[in-house]
Amino acid sequence: MEVRSHCPINFTLEHLGDKWSLLIIRDLMFKGKRHYNEFLEAGEKVSTSVLGDRLKKLEAYGIISRGRDTVKKSRIRYSLTKKGIDLLPILIEMIIWGGEKDLLTETPQEFIDQATQNKEVFIRQIRENLIKDHL
Amino acid sequence: MEVRSHCPINFTLEHLGDKWSLLIIRDLMFKGKRHYNEFLEAGEKVSTSVLGDRLKKLEAYGIISRGRDTVKKSRIRYSLTKKGIDLLPILIEMIIWGGEKDLLTETPQEFIDQATQNKEVFIRQIRENLIKDHL
Repeated sequence: MEVRSHCPINFTLEHLGDKWSLLIIRDLMFKGKRHYNEFLEAGEKVSTSVLGDRLKKLEAYGIISRGRDTVKKSRIRYSLTKKGIDLLPILIEMIIWGGEKDLLTETPQEFIDQATQNKEVFIRQIRENLIKDHL
Repeated sequence: MEVRSHCPINFTLEHLGDKWSLLIIRDLMFKGKRHYNEFLEAGEKVSTSVLGDRLKKLEAYGIISRGRDTVKKSRIRYSLTKKGIDLLPILIEMIIWGGEKDLLTETPQEFIDQATQNKEVFIRQIRENLIKDHL
């Protein structure tokens, strides 16, 4: 992938693409979603064409991978790669910012408290679970 | 602003808008840029129409503010607000991810080392400087 600059923030942004890519990563990371139809059902109402495009891009960038479902073999199951799991701290910081600024946030206060007061341990625990489930 | 969902990640993403907004925040946070022309000169070659639009949106969302330049009064100077400075940990995590994944990264290894090994102190120092310069 050719990037516009090798500033690390730009590099990260070009790989994340836009908010739709990050919402897929959110669903994989925090909502246990692994299948196309589950991503489609998210509250933000992504269109099928955008969803298909972002899944392809995330796979091409090595952030997610495609595999067969263990139960229903004909079904595609998406996983986060190591590179995808490494995005966890960015998403945690987004949860903290959004949770603090949005008066109508759906984030439980307990999550914010844990994420802010004991950040390192909190992130390590989520990361270990993701490694177990996805890699 | 009406958001598609009150998921904190979606809320944050809708406020950040797209990568162009985040590159403006990067320039304000880490490059000491405060003026329209300086944002325009960034390596990613933003167009004037996109730049004008994103500056307006970031101001409307309360992430940046407009003021008069202290030296040349006719010139507009942009500042980060408290809400904007609070985005710092998200950008630091993006620097770490991009700096680690991009073989051609322009980020000095020293920055990555400091940001990862002594994160809390590192972020606090940058935050204090931003508060002094912007608020």
